[in-house]
Amino acid sequence: MERTVNIGLMGLGTVGTGVVRLIEGHQEDLVHQTGVRIRIARILVRDPEKPRAIRVSRDLLTTDARDILDDPSIDVVVEVMGHIEPTRQYLLEALRRGKHVVTANKDLMALHGGEILSLAAERGCDVFYEASVAGGIPILRALVEGFSSDRITKLMGIVNGTTNYILTKMTREGADYAEALQEAQKLGYAEADPTSDVDGLDAARKMAILATLGFRTEVQLDEVDVTGIRKVTAEDIAYAKKLGYEIKLLGIAAQEDGLIEVSVEPTLVPQRHPLASVDGVMNAVYVYGEAVGETMFYGPGAGELPTATAVVSDLVTVVKNMKLGVNGRGMVAPYRPKALKTPEQMVAQYFLRLVVDDRTGVLAKITQLFADCDISLSQVLQEPFKGAGQAEIILVTHHATKKSKDEALARLAALDVVREIKSCYRVEGED
Amino acid sequence: MERTVNIGLMGLGTVGTGVVRLIEGHQEDLVHQTGVRIRIARILVRDPEKPRAIRVSRDLLTTDARDILDDPSIDVVVEVMGHIEPTRQYLLEALRRGKHVVTANKDLMALHGGEILSLAAERGCDVFYEASVAGGIPILRALVEGFSSDRITKLMGIVNGTTNYILTKMTREGADYAEALQEAQKLGYAEADPTSDVDGLDAARKMAILATLGFRTEVQLDEVDVTGIRKVTAEDIAYAKKLGYEIKLLGIAAQEDGLIEVSVEPTLVPQRHPLASVDGVMNAVYVYGEAVGETMFYGPGAGELPTATAVVSDLVTVVKNMKLGVNGRGMVAPYRPKALKTPEQMVAQYFLRLVVDDRTGVLAKITQLFADCDISLSQVLQEPFKGAGQAEIILVTHHATKKSKDEALARLAALDVVREIKSCYRVEGED
Repeated sequence: MERTVNIGLMGLGTVGTGVVRLIEGHQEDLVHQTGVRIRIARILVRDPEKPRAIRVSRDLLTTDARDILDDPSIDVVVEVMGHIEPTRQYLLEALRRGKHVVTANKDLMALHGGEILSLAAERGCDVFYEASVAGGIPILRALVEGFSSDRITKLMGIVNGTTNYILTKMTREGADYAEALQEAQKLGYAEADPTSDVDGLDAARKMAILATLGFRTEVQLDEVDVTGIRKVTAEDIAYAKKLGYEIKLLGIAAQEDGLIEVSVEPTLVPQRHPLASVDGVMNAVYVYGEAVGETMFYGPGAGELPTATAVVSDLVTVVKNMKLGVNGRGMVAPYRPKALKTPEQMVAQYFLRLVVDDRTGVLAKITQLFADCDISLSQVLQEPFKGAGQAEIILVTHHATKKSKDEALARLAALDVVREIKSCYRVEGED
Repeated sequence: MERTVNIGLMGLGTVGTGVVRLIEGHQEDLVHQTGVRIRIARILVRDPEKPRAIRVSRDLLTTDARDILDDPSIDVVVEVMGHIEPTRQYLLEALRRGKHVVTANKDLMALHGGEILSLAAERGCDVFYEASVAGGIPILRALVEGFSSDRITKLMGIVNGTTNYILTKMTREGADYAEALQEAQKLGYAEADPTSDVDGLDAARKMAILATLGFRTEVQLDEVDVTGIRKVTAEDIAYAKKLGYEIKLLGIAAQEDGLIEVSVEPTLVPQRHPLASVDGVMNAVYVYGEAVGETMFYGPGAGELPTATAVVSDLVTVVKNMKLGVNGRGMVAPYRPKALKTPEQMVAQYFLRLVVDDRTGVLAKITQLFADCDISLSQVLQEPFKGAGQAEIILVTHHATKKSKDEALARLAALDVVREIKSCYRVEGED
């Protein structure tokens, strides 16, 4: 008779439901691939009486995590309940009991990944978390295994579907931010309180995970410099388009000789860049490796079944490792030394939009200011502004240090002819 | 002292040079990841005296494969010499001697993959061949591991850089086929004899490999229906563009309830489809899974270092498996039953371009013919043709069976008002 691996499932929301569906629907394939039967032995839920989209035996449901943690017949804990606590405690306890862990929890892995992975290594347990970043796209495997021979120098990701939906709607339909957000909420793509998405926090967590794996050095969440999309206007998008760009909320992680920078910020990318055509709730991660050059991974960033695919594929790996007796032994802990780049070391192109007095010599004054800050300009556009006697100046710089850019912004703010600095965004993806 | 794994490298052309560079340049990283030192112990070449782009000790070079096969200290054979024979014999012999194999040889794997993988399983050896398809893109890992929990129903790939370069040049610059091919040859993207690329054979081999792994059933090379790009004209491309499409040489593999079809053919894709913007020598593989939905993997399909990245990443996996003692045990042999679709079961949209007599009632006659063949039309465009008294009719059908399409083509050819059937291509990527 074939062996059975018992799973304790923590959480039966959207992703949990998908996990149950996949394990049941693809059982024969899973047996073929692993040689064992995967059985969901227990499911931790908040409310066992809640009506659900799938039929699950009432006996499987429990509201007490101990029913999973204390059950020695359960081999793997699949955690899709989210939150930091008590989830962290549950997973640490599971590992202490020798149970392997598959999790979709980006918040937890971004904040406490180091602690969880160390304990796993100590206990000879697997911890996989492919589903925590970019849903159905197997990007973590690509970074850890596919590019194991290469040195990743840059990662750029559209890793939050909510904000990409909002920006796509603003771009395609000229909608303003409030309208687009409302539509996203109506469609269930954004939460009632959208803070974590629109302020870039969700993306920042994913970038910390990606950068840690890609650069093989521990990148902390508070090392990610985060700006959300609340202040992006329809005008910004229109001007960007006019100059040949789209605005995306990009997570950017760059590494050079152990000096790293990680940020999440609204960023202009050229219209022909592969990231520019990633629309709606889709996600994409662009990877630049020294040897491989540019690659991109595109797919659904969320959703019941896409995310469940990542979870159950991780589970298949755990089960194969169990059969081979090699759990917890494939992991490579971050080993590279690291320092954060200083603003003098961060180099990028920038897009600026200014409202100025419409007087003779203003453009000369402003371009001189940039020259004084050692910043050369790639594109300049002057347009009449709606206010009388005012003009709008849109600039794209060549590569400049963040320090120079910040200095230019400070000097612009102090300049009498400058009425307002409307926006300043990073520009990426030009050669 | 740390352990050393000895490699026998077969071939020191473009990819072989990249492998040497990567192993030498990234040695410290490789040690960190595998815990062992990877040493190139011997290199099989045709001409040891040939000047090379890298410095290699003359002592490492040999013209005799036995120096690698008979050397018990060599643990892994890395094969980047290409060709079917004697390469196949070498790899089978290596496996018989218990050596693991990493190969970039798509021709060999497409034709003799089954034989090689069975022997490997029997001998407890690893065989990995990520580099054989889509160069630097880790697509085989994605299919085997990333989507292990899902059922792949469709794969569409731009897997030949030469033809994609030619079609891109024709599309962007209006060049004709001969010009674009010449340019590709001048840049080294196409061989003096371009047959294997332009006739779609190279792409067919890669699609056989992708379909076998994606559908978990053995797909033979002669089961791939192949049409190359020699007959694609600048006019075809211009009309496709007018109707909102780009023409790409697509490998298409589809699977439904064990019924499969695999083809390589010039195909129209909508301009906003992710595959449409894959330009020049870049490759991309679009994967559709029942659960995950649509994903795409994009990157360089060839080149010294991109391909070497895939080879050395496979090598890292072999070495990790050696440390764990699990070589040859992770493989899942194809297990799904399979039948090829009949023309009645193959369904697609089609694009047709006809030259007809410019007479009253011709369009009615032709549209009636399609109706009689049970094909409904999605777009129809009639334009004057350069010949007097002639017109050009461009049609895009809705989904129709291949059988109906073939019947329509036969009837069109027999119709008195039809002067010439200029082209007929498949259309993919519309919902």
